[in-house]
Amino acid sequence: MDIEIDRESEVPLYRQVSAGIAELILADKLPPGHRLPAERRLARSLRVTRTTVVNAYLHLKAEGLIDAHVGRGTVVLPRRVPSAGVADVRPIPWHYFAADDLGDRPQRLFNEFVQRGASKGVIGFSAGIPGEESVPAETLASLAGQITRELGPRAFMPTPSEGLTELRATLADHLATHGLTCTAGNVVVTTGAEQAIDLLVRMLVARNDTVFVEEPTYAMALRLLRARGARLVGVPMDEEGMRTDDLETLLARFHPKLLYTGPTFQNPTGRVLSLERRLHLLDLAHRYQFPVVEDDVYSELRFSGTPVPSLAALDEHGYVVQVGSLSKVVAPGLRVGWAIAPLPVVRRLAAAKAATDLHTPTLNQWLAERFIRDGHLARHRRAVLRAHAARAALMDAALRHWAPDLVRWTLPEGGLSLWCVLPEDLPHDALMEECLRRGVTYLPGTLCAVDGASENGLRLTFGFPAEAAIDDGIARLMDAVRAATPSGEDRAAAELGTAAVV
Amino acid sequence: MDIEIDRESEVPLYRQVSAGIAELILADKLPPGHRLPAERRLARSLRVTRTTVVNAYLHLKAEGLIDAHVGRGTVVLPRRVPSAGVADVRPIPWHYFAADDLGDRPQRLFNEFVQRGASKGVIGFSAGIPGEESVPAETLASLAGQITRELGPRAFMPTPSEGLTELRATLADHLATHGLTCTAGNVVVTTGAEQAIDLLVRMLVARNDTVFVEEPTYAMALRLLRARGARLVGVPMDEEGMRTDDLETLLARFHPKLLYTGPTFQNPTGRVLSLERRLHLLDLAHRYQFPVVEDDVYSELRFSGTPVPSLAALDEHGYVVQVGSLSKVVAPGLRVGWAIAPLPVVRRLAAAKAATDLHTPTLNQWLAERFIRDGHLARHRRAVLRAHAARAALMDAALRHWAPDLVRWTLPEGGLSLWCVLPEDLPHDALMEECLRRGVTYLPGTLCAVDGASENGLRLTFGFPAEAAIDDGIARLMDAVRAATPSGEDRAAAELGTAAVV
Repeated sequence: MDIEIDRESEVPLYRQVSAGIAELILADKLPPGHRLPAERRLARSLRVTRTTVVNAYLHLKAEGLIDAHVGRGTVVLPRRVPSAGVADVRPIPWHYFAADDLGDRPQRLFNEFVQRGASKGVIGFSAGIPGEESVPAETLASLAGQITRELGPRAFMPTPSEGLTELRATLADHLATHGLTCTAGNVVVTTGAEQAIDLLVRMLVARNDTVFVEEPTYAMALRLLRARGARLVGVPMDEEGMRTDDLETLLARFHPKLLYTGPTFQNPTGRVLSLERRLHLLDLAHRYQFPVVEDDVYSELRFSGTPVPSLAALDEHGYVVQVGSLSKVVAPGLRVGWAIAPLPVVRRLAAAKAATDLHTPTLNQWLAERFIRDGHLARHRRAVLRAHAARAALMDAALRHWAPDLVRWTLPEGGLSLWCVLPEDLPHDALMEECLRRGVTYLPGTLCAVDGASENGLRLTFGFPAEAAIDDGIARLMDAVRAATPSGEDRAAAELGTAAVV
Repeated sequence: MDIEIDRESEVPLYRQVSAGIAELILADKLPPGHRLPAERRLARSLRVTRTTVVNAYLHLKAEGLIDAHVGRGTVVLPRRVPSAGVADVRPIPWHYFAADDLGDRPQRLFNEFVQRGASKGVIGFSAGIPGEESVPAETLASLAGQITRELGPRAFMPTPSEGLTELRATLADHLATHGLTCTAGNVVVTTGAEQAIDLLVRMLVARNDTVFVEEPTYAMALRLLRARGARLVGVPMDEEGMRTDDLETLLARFHPKLLYTGPTFQNPTGRVLSLERRLHLLDLAHRYQFPVVEDDVYSELRFSGTPVPSLAALDEHGYVVQVGSLSKVVAPGLRVGWAIAPLPVVRRLAAAKAATDLHTPTLNQWLAERFIRDGHLARHRRAVLRAHAARAALMDAALRHWAPDLVRWTLPEGGLSLWCVLPEDLPHDALMEECLRRGVTYLPGTLCAVDGASENGLRLTFGFPAEAAIDDGIARLMDAVRAATPSGEDRAAAELGTAAVV
């Protein structure tokens, strides 16, 4: 038989053989009833294994082109009418997805705008992560060498679901230096803080449960909670963070299953909840009996001002689960985070973690462990905080220089980004378009708004772009703000429109 | 003030200071109204920073022990009555968890028995993973060195949620050698195949949806599906895998939202679905319009017999999502897996992945990419398959030598484990106890049973324990089987009991 075989091709040999024979059959060179050569003989003539021919014949049989019976050999079948079998397979209805499918959200905005921060020529203020300049790559590389030499295969074998015992102990020691008294048993290691939030939401929140969050709040937490079917209540904020007086008022109306909060350098506003409000919040949690998830991923990044104890450090009654990570302080691609929780919560988190990804990769856990234990974290943090402070000051200066009058912001005392509030009537879509044109991105506050009633804010990450690009980026952004600002005439028309409707 | 400070302690300095002052107050050495020293002065005398004293005072204020006002200084407050505040905080009701909480399952069995496979002196047949002897630690270590040198900080920066572009392309090429035609765009990289299953279940299955699985099936998939509230229908199996005639009968009664199957070296039975049944299954999927999730993590581990094309390779209509991993062939602790899916599914999986853990760790994705691209996988696989074949033969020989008459098993043609079927009346709890006593573990088939109607089977992993321990382990296990087997008298009594009831 005249069949061409390409041994360099990615197409497996048996598919090449079956495709060749199918071609001959469909071209009527092998008519119905024609007996195909025995497998061993064809194999020899094509210089392939017998298995290859067996599989090729099985495939042709599956396609209804040939038939084989013991004693009768393999024969070409009469051609099927096209309406039968394969031809009338309808496309699969993949669009019937589950109601709480996490993919169920328009990704266009995120993909086309926010992620463009990483493209060439674009100055990205959108990512909430440190840039390459702040990643201790050499230390991590040398630790990786040390660990793999020392541990051999064990660096690639599983760890318990709750995390490597050594890392749990080292984290507990490390957090004690931040005033959080816990033991290794309170630690669950996760694939970034993101996963800790996901597991906690899955564990604690059912459809229609009320969850309190700050207004605005972390965009991805919003997405997890919305997909879960939670009823979200946004607690207003001011410069001192969540307004706990408003929280108390809301507690008279709703009983939350959970309060999710970022009290220190909150995402996206960068604000710090005052100590007085922290104590008020805890008092309310105790009185109204709701658990608190404290997102604490930014607290190590304070470069000025006085540290305030975390909610978990202040709480003595186990109401707070604290979520942390090395993504903001060390490296975002390492994917090592954690939850610090009371023991019954740890047990369930570990079981949930086992079902979702078994455990966080072993080498990464060891990298985190050695990085903290050997003092690299403390050293790296000092260096990186100096850099962040300088970048924040740079962005502040650029804003002073380029921003129009109505734009407001506060120089933060830590974290990676600065919250910049625009006039309320500045249209968001127009601003994004103008920014795309000028090659600059930010995180739109609209992604973080619980009910859209948030300030018209932008989160600008000073920690990510090349330091030298910050001034230029702010110039481009403020240029876009000016271009997107409605003219006096538009404003008058809009007001007239409103007046006419009222 | 007489306060002891231990600079080596894990307790932060401010907590040591506040605890020291609190002790003096509670011992009445500092009476109500006593004015505490100014922060700066106390800091100097204790040789701590002013911030430490500020925080210590804030903490004491929070505890209601002192009060501070500008101009009046810091004074000790009158002692609170114990009934107020902190003292009457009720414990938080952590037990109100969500209904589909993944932690909601007794873990005792798993923790106390299955995981004991890793303890000293115990011969573990329970883990479904290769042992340290089969992990290519040196190659992975040298690749890690290469990658970190070559990429610098980029080895620790984020990748897209759907995975590193280079790894997606390399995987698509690699899978083509297995007859699966796909492009990089069809690949979503996950933190192990486990996560791919989790994301697919979250995307496709809602509460009360019917899901078909083999009876028995992968224990962790069962757990994910049960937590999700799926109605599970177990399709019976025989030596050729899932009985597709029974599947067809069930399809007349139920419409599944999803069929989850492991056609090649199925977990836990190690069985391989015949080609004929694969084609029948696909035909049913096309006619009854249900998507198929093919768990293909073991197919690369065939050490004898003829390969059968995967469902994804046979399907030409995009009904099959294939899930794969490097955990079984390379290293379980690397946590790199994937899903191969039609594009609309890829988009949603990537969005879901972004919300759950952002992306799989960067260095691990590069390790996987280089390991496959540079030909290490092909070489390693050849070596490891020889070892697995030898181990399987060893276990088979040990069973022939030690197993009592009524125990049945089949020597598999690949995978990591062997399915061993015990007499139906062998009590499971007794067997586990006898095994614990003798230091040997296995995966109980009861963990894999959909409705408990499964064979009384044990999954015995020949790929995990030290090769030299296999014979001894089987001897211990069969000794335990004999000890747990009901005696003739017990049997007669049990039969009598049944007869009396009937």
